[in-house]
Amino acid sequence: MHDKVKEFNDYRQKMNDKILEADNKVIKRIYNLDTNTFKEGHLPVKTKELLGLVASAVLRCDDCVQYHLEAAMKNGVTKEEMMETMSIATLVGGTIVIPHLRRAVEYWEMLENK
Amino acid sequence: MHDKVKEFNDYRQKMNDKILEADNKVIKRIYNLDTNTFKEGHLPVKTKELLGLVASAVLRCDDCVQYHLEAAMKNGVTKEEMMETMSIATLVGGTIVIPHLRRAVEYWEMLENK
Amino acid sequence: MHDKVKEFNDYRQKMNDKILEADNKVIKRIYNLDTNTFKEGHLPVKTKELLGLVASAVLRCDDCVQYHLEAAMKNGVTKEEMMETMSIATLVGGTIVIPHLRRAVEYWEMLENK
Amino acid sequence: MHDKVKEFNDYRQKMNDKILEADNKVIKRIYNLDTNTFKEGHLPVKTKELLGLVASAVLRCDDCVQYHLEAAMKNGVTKEEMMETMSIATLVGGTIVIPHLRRAVEYWEMLENK
Amino acid sequence: MHDKVKEFNDYRQKMNDKILEADNKVIKRIYNLDTNTFKEGHLPVKTKELLGLVASAVLRCDDCVQYHLEAAMKNGVTKEEMMETMSIATLVGGTIVIPHLRRAVEYWEMLENK
Amino acid sequence: MHDKVKEFNDYRQKMNDKILEADNKVIKRIYNLDTNTFKEGHLPVKTKELLGLVASAVLRCDDCVQYHLEAAMKNGVTKEEMMETMSIATLVGGTIVIPHLRRAVEYWEMLENK
Repeated sequence: MHDKVKEFNDYRQKMNDKILEADNKVIKRIYNLDTNTFKEGHLPVKTKELLGLVASAVLRCDDCVQYHLEAAMKNGVTKEEMMETMSIATLVGGTIVIPHLRRAVEYWEMLENK
Repeated sequence: MHDKVKEFNDYRQKMNDKILEADNKVIKRIYNLDTNTFKEGHLPVKTKELLGLVASAVLRCDDCVQYHLEAAMKNGVTKEEMMETMSIATLVGGTIVIPHLRRAVEYWEMLENK
Repeated sequence: MHDKVKEFNDYRQKMNDKILEADNKVIKRIYNLDTNTFKEGHLPVKTKELLGLVASAVLRCDDCVQYHLEAAMKNGVTKEEMMETMSIATLVGGTIVIPHLRRAVEYWEMLENK
Repeated sequence: MHDKVKEFNDYRQKMNDKILEADNKVIKRIYNLDTNTFKEGHLPVKTKELLGLVASAVLRCDDCVQYHLEAAMKNGVTKEEMMETMSIATLVGGTIVIPHLRRAVEYWEMLENK
Repeated sequence: MHDKVKEFNDYRQKMNDKILEADNKVIKRIYNLDTNTFKEGHLPVKTKELLGLVASAVLRCDDCVQYHLEAAMKNGVTKEEMMETMSIATLVGGTIVIPHLRRAVEYWEMLENK
Repeated sequence: MHDKVKEFNDYRQKMNDKILEADNKVIKRIYNLDTNTFKEGHLPVKTKELLGLVASAVLRCDDCVQYHLEAAMKNGVTKEEMMETMSIATLVGGTIVIPHLRRAVEYWEMLENK
């Protein structure tokens, strides 16, 4: 079976490696910061992942949505909570978010089937 | 022949069904509202579809553009009127709209060929 | 009485004059194009102004919204038609459009009171 | 003392009343939906307000940020949690979010001083 | 070997031809303006291409990024300068630019391999 | 005389101080990164400031535009170069950039008069 989740993660990993090899200090520090931002803090990881998800959805970044969907699922987010998060994105960001909602629901299903 | 219009509509329908099955009240109401907004009102349906098209184009949502192109054609919009609408989108939204204009013109042609 | 409509138009005129004096060819041609785009074509001026309004509203540009509100009113757009246009903007662009809707309705009222 | 929080809320209330009086069905339903979306569901109100805040911040809507800051504070969000939410917004949305962060911190302080 | 650069350029050329054939005066003039804007002026072509690249990147337009990457390379931009430009885009535009950075680095590599 | 440049810088400084006092590690590191990104590298400071300016302009962030205008002027950017940079922003980002162009030209004039 064609595994879109693996394909997505492999591509991301391969290109991230190339980007980090290019050794641009600013980009390396942004990557580093990205990892730290979503760690446990005053807010739990689960909430932070939902915050990352809704931000990605209203900014309509499919790759970012997929990344946060995967992290959200790993941290115990239920489908209902994910849909509620996406409903806020769709209300605040408008119906232009709907095509991204379709792809998010499709990706969530792929993650469930793994 | 590969039918991209049918493929697009089938995917949208399939995913919309899954989204509505998830039974999130907010999302269901937004879907419902979407249908009602573009019905005849003080403005005719044709004008509303052009408004939906230009809004989708400046927000650079290809799926939304395709949806409104199809509805516009069904409501008697000519190619000249569509291009004039897209020219407003390109002026107001800038040259970053041009890639979406290319795909819009391609999709319009597919619709004409059906 | 403090005349916000006049103030807005005066500032715009004053700065546009300074911009055109700077004699940048690209900017001058964009200004020129802007005037031509909204002239009668395959679509009537009134429809074009509504297209300009909805594009400005979803891109959340208050100055652009005010400009098109004024031109729309001059071309016979009714309050109901304006509100219907703004309702499409709010649905497509999301609730982040609402603060701009508030300022649009306020500006429309100022225009009515002139 | 000049009360910016009250001024903001009064203006919003006054204009919302005028908008609802205009009796556009789509806009009225979006307003209604907005109220329902942020009610207790699978996610607690507090989390939903943080989701509304981060979405508003990355979309750079000061009025929306202020609205959610006020609701967040009422629902027990601490300054640290607010700042953590805004840090996600600034990382995901970039340094263009910083001017909005400045105004958010200023508004939060006003709310604390009430 | 599958030549993605050629494929991208062919598609762009084919659709641009169709768009110009449609003979919409506004669109034709925007196309014309686009060519003139990036010509040598007070700023050298190389700097202008970097300006076009960073604008395209923060607006997250992959096609525009690819177009400017190609023109930048032709005008002597080094990989380090390209990465530095993209690092500014990622800082200012946020981590949502990262997926576009991945595709930019991939496309740059394709251009190098030609 | 009312000094808008000083007022802008004082407000920014005051709020930045408050933000840094709040001691959120992610935000502090983004601030730090911001300073480093625009330092001399493979590209000269002047070019980087123009990149920051065009990115800010297409993302329509007035405060960011003002910040980069000031840094650009300090690094020897001429009015013609600034206008050329803004013309690229207006072409790529569309006529919705024009209100920001007006405020940029106004701010540049204030800087010249200091």
